[in-house]
Amino acid sequence: MPLSTAARSVRGSAIRDLLALTSRPEVISLAGGLPAADLMPRERIAAAAAAALAHPASIQYGETAGLPALRVVLAAHETARCRREITDVVVTTGSQQALDLVARAVLDPGDAVVVEDPAYVGALQVFQAAGAALHPVPLDGDGLRVDVLEDHLRDGLRPRLVHTVSTFHNPRGVTLSPQRRVRLAGLAERYGFTVVEDDPYGLLAFDGAPPLPVAAHSDRVVRLGSASKVLAPALRVGWLSGPPGLLAAVELLKQCTDLCTSSLTQAIAADLLADTAFLDAHLSGVRAATASRAHAFTTAVARHLPGVTCSAPTGGMFCWLELPGVDTTALLPRALEHGVGFVPGGAFAVEAPQPHAIRCCYASHPEPVIHEAVRRLARAAT
Amino acid sequence: MPLSTAARSVRGSAIRDLLALTSRPEVISLAGGLPAADLMPRERIAAAAAAALAHPASIQYGETAGLPALRVVLAAHETARCRREITDVVVTTGSQQALDLVARAVLDPGDAVVVEDPAYVGALQVFQAAGAALHPVPLDGDGLRVDVLEDHLRDGLRPRLVHTVSTFHNPRGVTLSPQRRVRLAGLAERYGFTVVEDDPYGLLAFDGAPPLPVAAHSDRVVRLGSASKVLAPALRVGWLSGPPGLLAAVELLKQCTDLCTSSLTQAIAADLLADTAFLDAHLSGVRAATASRAHAFTTAVARHLPGVTCSAPTGGMFCWLELPGVDTTALLPRALEHGVGFVPGGAFAVEAPQPHAIRCCYASHPEPVIHEAVRRLARAAT
Repeated sequence: MPLSTAARSVRGSAIRDLLALTSRPEVISLAGGLPAADLMPRERIAAAAAAALAHPASIQYGETAGLPALRVVLAAHETARCRREITDVVVTTGSQQALDLVARAVLDPGDAVVVEDPAYVGALQVFQAAGAALHPVPLDGDGLRVDVLEDHLRDGLRPRLVHTVSTFHNPRGVTLSPQRRVRLAGLAERYGFTVVEDDPYGLLAFDGAPPLPVAAHSDRVVRLGSASKVLAPALRVGWLSGPPGLLAAVELLKQCTDLCTSSLTQAIAADLLADTAFLDAHLSGVRAATASRAHAFTTAVARHLPGVTCSAPTGGMFCWLELPGVDTTALLPRALEHGVGFVPGGAFAVEAPQPHAIRCCYASHPEPVIHEAVRRLARAAT
Repeated sequence: MPLSTAARSVRGSAIRDLLALTSRPEVISLAGGLPAADLMPRERIAAAAAAALAHPASIQYGETAGLPALRVVLAAHETARCRREITDVVVTTGSQQALDLVARAVLDPGDAVVVEDPAYVGALQVFQAAGAALHPVPLDGDGLRVDVLEDHLRDGLRPRLVHTVSTFHNPRGVTLSPQRRVRLAGLAERYGFTVVEDDPYGLLAFDGAPPLPVAAHSDRVVRLGSASKVLAPALRVGWLSGPPGLLAAVELLKQCTDLCTSSLTQAIAADLLADTAFLDAHLSGVRAATASRAHAFTTAVARHLPGVTCSAPTGGMFCWLELPGVDTTALLPRALEHGVGFVPGGAFAVEAPQPHAIRCCYASHPEPVIHEAVRRLARAAT
């Protein structure tokens, strides 16, 4: 059967394909971006599910833009995060859907989109499906090289969208500096593009709060959020805030896409996100445990993988390692034989091939398992 | 902010807009396509949720194609329905997502798509977003006028897709006859198009089983199913079966769209759909209650609305009424003043304007309320 241009334009996610390999029980997987099962509030979710299911509305269709109670809570959270009033939020089926709907609402085939290099693979897939012309901009330890972007803009590039995982980057583990956030917002105003600030990890700061969102500095920012990394992926609750005209278009396209997100999982999310006492304690616990795992990971890397550079995690779930001289795509099957999985850097590459890099998720396992994973990786790499 | 061609191509759903008006407590709404709250198995869902949430996998990400246990159950159900082996099924976030993903996987802008006239509004929105050229074909009491479609094909029309709500049509309430199903399947083979057999209502037959699906007669059929009308909309569980190449493309595009459907709601659906004793009793109860409501509706129409023709419901949720000489769009505000809501036929129109028609959902209320709704409608119409 002949397929559409869109279907032929999307590369499969090497990561999703890898998950099959790394899910073998003898393999410790550092490959997935999975929240740790032991850090998700399953009992609290069960209580919220039982409470929600006492009401008939919990199993009925809901408004396309989302459960009103959830939208109110999310708008309050976003207002606090951005330190300016966020009056409206549209709930989506995970923040992946928010990204897809923004792309569908704004992009025509051939439109220019700036992506980070390396990039979140799900973003690349969305922009490929939209037929966008991708313009990669590299990252360094302070996140997106906004200076390089500015050079491109001066040279005439006119993107519709600039996508950034601004905080605790996937896969690079870095955070866009406050100065660059201000500068990026200024460029959006000057050159008339929209920043898509994709922020599923911002609540997982190990120490203090991350910098103010880019959205704090400009109206030309669409902010995407997610309950997947802080509560549970299976809620499939994401959200976006941004320019009203864009939100209206996203809501209309969401009618086409899935009518509405589950009333049940939205009710659960609303319950947990409005329960400040629970949420504060829960997030503190997740942050502390994840920080400890990150420390265990970087300590083990320093000890067992000399010569390997490793991003310094300050939040989120990922470290980015550079193994000089090592072909990490070739390393992967050897690593799997040694019982450890990771994602080769090439899976995230847009232009720069990243042959020596790997992404490791340190968040999914307790410290002793993390240590053992790094030992196995070291044995495979030598 | 400038929007994409897709966003500018989609008409808002008049029905979703109407729901706001008809949700006022003093209005009896026959407008929505909502399953009756009292007929949904909320307690059984709560038990399944509690059981699922005993396991960590219930709140984690899942495979894009769906929870394996659910896919197995659905493939078995589809095999029984189609009386031929259906080996593979992809789970979607409601069958609306299945429709959207099929359109994205197959259609390029300008491709021809045959739609029913009047049509399911959600299908029109999907094909508008895909930039398709819509070719309406009328319906009669035996469903899609396959003879008219054949005329168009002989005249040179070459659609990529032909969309049909084959059984208990939304909005027309009719069912495609067995003969036409065979003929439609034959045309798909001869002219090389794919039939999208959209079947959310087929399990709601009042008396006996509906005709064999179109998919029983050809491999060139994508069948869409849904748990929304038989279990609960808030599960957001739909599915599709069809040609393997198309399913693979749908799975890839689903990665872009929402990564996966909720593991929790899939586990609930798998539990209920695999529980044959529960499911048989539940469906029998829903069918009997809905049949009784349909009977109450048609009886009340015959009594209170002389001269009005009404489709003869044999399953599903909708009746289609023709009120000769009445402008039903103008009637709606008067009807709302009288405390009853419906959807004017024009909301479903593709080419034929349907000025005198209305769609009524008889499934959402018990018999006395249905009676009262028709009495109010009669007062508004005279």
